[in-house]
Amino acid sequence: MIAGGAHISAKAQIGSNVKLGFGTIVHDNVIIGDNVEIDSYCEIGYPTKLAEGKPLKIGKDSLIRSHSVFYEGSEFKEGLKTGHRVTIREKTIAGLNLQIGTLCDFQGHLTIGDYCRTHSNVHLGQASKIGNFVWIFPYTVLTNDPHPPSNKTIGVTIEDYAIVATMVCVLPGITIGTHSLVGASSMVNRNVNPYTIVAGNPAKEIGPTSKIKLKDFPEVAAYPWPKHFHRGYPDDVVATWKTEYSS
Amino acid sequence: MIAGGAHISAKAQIGSNVKLGFGTIVHDNVIIGDNVEIDSYCEIGYPTKLAEGKPLKIGKDSLIRSHSVFYEGSEFKEGLKTGHRVTIREKTIAGLNLQIGTLCDFQGHLTIGDYCRTHSNVHLGQASKIGNFVWIFPYTVLTNDPHPPSNKTIGVTIEDYAIVATMVCVLPGITIGTHSLVGASSMVNRNVNPYTIVAGNPAKEIGPTSKIKLKDFPEVAAYPWPKHFHRGYPDDVVATWKTEYSS
Amino acid sequence: MIAGGAHISAKAQIGSNVKLGFGTIVHDNVIIGDNVEIDSYCEIGYPTKLAEGKPLKIGKDSLIRSHSVFYEGSEFKEGLKTGHRVTIREKTIAGLNLQIGTLCDFQGHLTIGDYCRTHSNVHLGQASKIGNFVWIFPYTVLTNDPHPPSNKTIGVTIEDYAIVATMVCVLPGITIGTHSLVGASSMVNRNVNPYTIVAGNPAKEIGPTSKIKLKDFPEVAAYPWPKHFHRGYPDDVVATWKTEYSS
Repeated sequence: MIAGGAHISAKAQIGSNVKLGFGTIVHDNVIIGDNVEIDSYCEIGYPTKLAEGKPLKIGKDSLIRSHSVFYEGSEFKEGLKTGHRVTIREKTIAGLNLQIGTLCDFQGHLTIGDYCRTHSNVHLGQASKIGNFVWIFPYTVLTNDPHPPSNKTIGVTIEDYAIVATMVCVLPGITIGTHSLVGASSMVNRNVNPYTIVAGNPAKEIGPTSKIKLKDFPEVAAYPWPKHFHRGYPDDVVATWKTEYSS
Repeated sequence: MIAGGAHISAKAQIGSNVKLGFGTIVHDNVIIGDNVEIDSYCEIGYPTKLAEGKPLKIGKDSLIRSHSVFYEGSEFKEGLKTGHRVTIREKTIAGLNLQIGTLCDFQGHLTIGDYCRTHSNVHLGQASKIGNFVWIFPYTVLTNDPHPPSNKTIGVTIEDYAIVATMVCVLPGITIGTHSLVGASSMVNRNVNPYTIVAGNPAKEIGPTSKIKLKDFPEVAAYPWPKHFHRGYPDDVVATWKTEYSS
Repeated sequence: MIAGGAHISAKAQIGSNVKLGFGTIVHDNVIIGDNVEIDSYCEIGYPTKLAEGKPLKIGKDSLIRSHSVFYEGSEFKEGLKTGHRVTIREKTIAGLNLQIGTLCDFQGHLTIGDYCRTHSNVHLGQASKIGNFVWIFPYTVLTNDPHPPSNKTIGVTIEDYAIVATMVCVLPGITIGTHSLVGASSMVNRNVNPYTIVAGNPAKEIGPTSKIKLKDFPEVAAYPWPKHFHRGYPDDVVATWKTEYSS
């Protein structure tokens, strides 16, 4: 179903049962899977030489909300879900079931694993490497220039299951370890060890993540979070977690 | 007056003297009061199951600027005024004469009193409770998850007349007291007492608000602000303030 | 070339070889130079009384990306280049070859010199004064109200060649000196001396910029940056730098 005001290139490859909202533009070099819904006033496959001819691929069962812009040359596996007004530049390569919040700004030339979530207004600089099951909360920025302005780009690495809270700035080249937690309003200028909490400006280590307890069950550790939080993940993944993270 | 490219559901209830800009979409479950102006490329009444069938109500004498998105199930009394590209999700319940800056992102399931102003790019997490005459400045985020990711939501409360300055992050469950002032770039992890200033990361109390003086009249306290700032408030409110806040 | 859905006022003055994207709106009081490209769903010359009748002028050889909004009464010399969804209010007066990142929010009533770059999501408060060759990185805010809310506006001044890194908040009336560097996540409440580094919340002086060395050439100072970074600047400017900044 294509709404009246949509502008779809005849060269675009569009799967079955795809819904395109009013005024959405789909450029030439685009491959959209089955059962994808793209809301109104998006621009999909924005041409850029920096894509080097590679298409934009949107996997099946995806939902892109209104006023979003995706460049040519990026690739998303199935189950992508976005908020409104996201900007995704070329060579953003992402895995399964990525959720991208409203106003997120992915600068391209970066990789994202499976089942990641970035909440509203997250900015991912070029050369960021994000693992699987990572959470990034609003207004967080991953930088990449060690002495701006320069031509040197050194991305941030975020390992599997790490959580970066709200309004965090991560300096170039930093690695945020698996299952670690970066507290809100932190400026991270040193690597973060796995399973540890850091917070502050500059961020300092303040203990193991296990010391944070669930608000409603003060005897239960809140981390690793897959022990208690399963919303939106597939049953087989959750089943694995139940074995792996039982205490 | 409805511009050429607007797409208006016949089921929407639209008052008299309503202006809708080019390309603006109005969905079914929407009630718009008299003398409302909605600029171009907005999406009004975006459907969501989370609204549980409740309509979007926009009070009379309102102005919504371009590229904004309002979900079903939210409600604004008269005199709403927004900047561009605001996103307002379901169950945002707001009082009179709310002003919302460009790029604000209200996550829904929250309440806002009368005569509040949020400047550009303010993010209100679900379960936020905002009183009357509150000011929130750019790039401020009210969070709600005590140990992210989780299913526990504990909103921030901001009491009447409080001021939260630029680029502040407020942690879940915090109360910011009436007539208090949170300084720029603060991370607030403790309750803020009424009529006090806090600042820093983490924010610390640095004295009563009365110690800040007007730049042009160094003998006059700048707070409570209704003593000297009246722009945009109705005459009867200002008359009350003149009695209440005379020294 | 004007795309099908564009809505162009007959009163607007539009140069030769101008491309306007789908659905872009050009209002009456607009002067667009030759060889300008404006992408889809922009609103150009948004009327406001605050412009006092002055037109919006976009210099030749400019590129404005999608979903952007420019108000009447602002002026850009040739070579403007923007990202997506920028908001530029009235009386923003800018020099040559300005680059404005995605989601930037310029509040108007401000001046910007030649060859400046603001990365994504930079917020410039009214009365900001920005020199030439200035760099401002993502999520940085220049404020202007010394005791909010008030009617007093005291802008920030940023001198030539200064660099303000990511997620910085600059308080009203502050001057950031020429060739200085403000580190990421800083809150700047004191003037910054030329050729110095400040960082932190609140920002403190941490030495001369010359102490930062190039990552790939540890014996070479990274600042002043025109010694080594020339991308996007015209040949004659770079030739001048080669004389001026040779060691």
